Amino acid sequence: MRLSELFTKTTKEIPADESALNARLLIQAGFVNKVMAGVYDYLPLGLRVLNKVANIIREEMNAIGGQEIFMTTLQDPATWRAANRWDDQVVDNWFKSELKSGGEVGLANTHEEPLAKLLTRHIHSYRDLPKYIYQIQTKFRNELRAKSGLMRAREFLMKDLYSFSRTEAEFQEFYEMCARAYLKIFDRVGLGKNTYRTFASGGSFSKFSDEFQTLSASGEDLIYLDEKKGLAVNKEVYTEEVLKELGLEKANLVEKKAIEVGNIFLLGTKFPEALGLRFRDQAGRAQPVIMGSYGIGLGRLIGTIVETSNDERGIIWPAAIAPFQVHLVSLTKSKSPIAAADKIYQALTEIGLEVLYDDREEKTPGEKFADADLMGMPYRAVVSEKTGDKIELKLRSENNTELLTRQALIARLK
Amino acid sequence: MRLSELFTKTTKEIPADESALNARLLIQAGFVNKVMAGVYDYLPLGLRVLNKVANIIREEMNAIGGQEIFMTTLQDPATWRAANRWDDQVVDNWFKSELKSGGEVGLANTHEEPLAKLLTRHIHSYRDLPKYIYQIQTKFRNELRAKSGLMRAREFLMKDLYSFSRTEAEFQEFYEMCARAYLKIFDRVGLGKNTYRTFASGGSFSKFSDEFQTLSASGEDLIYLDEKKGLAVNKEVYTEEVLKELGLEKANLVEKKAIEVGNIFLLGTKFPEALGLRFRDQAGRAQPVIMGSYGIGLGRLIGTIVETSNDERGIIWPAAIAPFQVHLVSLTKSKSPIAAADKIYQALTEIGLEVLYDDREEKTPGEKFADADLMGMPYRAVVSEKTGDKIELKLRSENNTELLTRQALIARLK
Repeated sequence: MRLSELFTKTTKEIPADESALNARLLIQAGFVNKVMAGVYDYLPLGLRVLNKVANIIREEMNAIGGQEIFMTTLQDPATWRAANRWDDQVVDNWFKSELKSGGEVGLANTHEEPLAKLLTRHIHSYRDLPKYIYQIQTKFRNELRAKSGLMRAREFLMKDLYSFSRTEAEFQEFYEMCARAYLKIFDRVGLGKNTYRTFASGGSFSKFSDEFQTLSASGEDLIYLDEKKGLAVNKEVYTEEVLKELGLEKANLVEKKAIEVGNIFLLGTKFPEALGLRFRDQAGRAQPVIMGSYGIGLGRLIGTIVETSNDERGIIWPAAIAPFQVHLVSLTKSKSPIAAADKIYQALTEIGLEVLYDDREEKTPGEKFADADLMGMPYRAVVSEKTGDKIELKLRSENNTELLTRQALIARLK
Repeated sequence: MRLSELFTKTTKEIPADESALNARLLIQAGFVNKVMAGVYDYLPLGLRVLNKVANIIREEMNAIGGQEIFMTTLQDPATWRAANRWDDQVVDNWFKSELKSGGEVGLANTHEEPLAKLLTRHIHSYRDLPKYIYQIQTKFRNELRAKSGLMRAREFLMKDLYSFSRTEAEFQEFYEMCARAYLKIFDRVGLGKNTYRTFASGGSFSKFSDEFQTLSASGEDLIYLDEKKGLAVNKEVYTEEVLKELGLEKANLVEKKAIEVGNIFLLGTKFPEALGLRFRDQAGRAQPVIMGSYGIGLGRLIGTIVETSNDERGIIWPAAIAPFQVHLVSLTKSKSPIAAADKIYQALTEIGLEVLYDDREEKTPGEKFADADLMGMPYRAVVSEKTGDKIELKLRSENNTELLTRQALIARLK
């Protein structure tokens, strides 16, 4: 894509109420637009990141047998009343609205009840189970304060998978498989080195859950980490008893701030029972389905990547989710090097590379370099009169540059 | 995909309040789930159709210079008040909600105002224009009655593109380009033969607009069609004057019922002026941007395809948007033909075909054929003891069958 054609511009104007680094950098670089606190539009560069993250998640969920669906935002209060989660006293972050035809509707803040209800039409026998169903869809949470940028939004895309199993053992087997898939996802999006499976409280559904925590000074959670074992414990369940159960020694643990990027837990039979989702076992007896929940917030994941991969000049995108692999900068106004840069742009895109091509004539070299650093593509390639026939290549994450011929550049980036 | 693994089942139970044929067939075949009137979940088969339709639209919008973004549902009332569209007396189908932190929010029923506002941060000079920006995102319309299935929903995905031009001529050039792209889209999704560019009223924004109308007995619009010229006039502007302007003769026109599957029109400078979106021309003078709107509802498009492509046994999907190309039916319980069907499944998927494989053991041949007809994949391939080494191939849209060897089948479907 040519930067001269892209409609977004980098900016120095950040909304005064935006204190989170992730949102500040993403707004500055033109990846997102702030509509109101906790509500962000994805602009072309941000949408490319979002789609790449979504596809990585999708691939890993499909690989463990996930079937993708797309549920609705508008929700019937009756479905939520069945498990007593419609009342604002019980769930305090509902957005609700009214139908012109009469009656209320809710904006889905999660989808356990509607999915359990939907499945009563499709799951009848032990032969129909187990099933693993997921979606990548918007959730709405009426947060009193939304001040962590994309990390705690009022409207955000979430991958939520729900498992439906016949037995605890069947549930447990999938749960561990999904935990491994989660580590793979965090690895693929570039958070592998500092993301840990973390033992945590189960909230209202079960005694314990597993979180996936990414180390970050801006994290809201405190975890106790055994770096050698690659395991951690959330402060909320940091007791002698839990450590013993997990085989962890206090002496080997370090306290760290971290951001929760994923969470998996047993839901049990609460929602299936409330919505009437049962199956007939081999003896013909009705049994409740056992449900599990597996979530990843996509905006939060992107926010975490920005929080943990940046420097004073801007974002440093991991290659797998960068909107473009190469930021090609043309530095001169005289005709022939422009033609040379055009040819390199064409050659790189022809071999399938994603190239953001800064062909803008009105910008100075300093402005172009600053934009490249702010936007954070993995490679920067510069064509100028100074470099002549060669191209100057630099990794965003490193300082040294290299002069390469066009052939050598193509061979390197291929 | 193996039907034994797919979580959805076909059903004869249709919600009592569902009168629209498109929704009835899609629910029966397990493509969608009705949450409430005008609100439908997309299940795995339906989501595959939705994604194919979305990708066709995306390709054609990108081809004419569209840049994709993803805007939010939650909207700031201030933005809508700027052009006087917040008031329920002016826009009567708002869904509104309240922030816990105080104040109202709207659920986007369209995105002119928020996009014009967003662009004030990126468009400053004549050099920044023209721009063509689109999204595929959910709209919410608080319809008093929602009774046409997916064709008039309360929550639905829409592709909305907005053009931002400097001059009327520049606007007009893109407008015609987009009209051609629309015809291409309708052709690619299988509606080409009965979809016509139709001259219509411009509503509150301009004198005229162009609709794209698909002939259908269940259509809510009446159009006057010149089949030879491939042009039509909506009843609402069917006057001598308009016919003369379009060079149409009353004698050549036939009255037809039709469904509006797309709509393009000039918005003018109303929203840019209300939101302060101006550009400096070459002389440095501030000028208002000229805006155009180009919409296609994805659910309505899918609903229209189902309304116009079905028979008494079920849906007949056009190949380009069918969830799978081949419905492979294994008809026997004895081991060796099952293995034979498995091998054909593997061989067809290996050459890149999308195959829905009915490997269910508990179903009768009659049930399997009925499901194949209801679900409507373009090809049905049957493996049974009766057909021996050969495979029986049939087009969903035709009655005759053919017996082919495995090699011949692969060669045919490739």
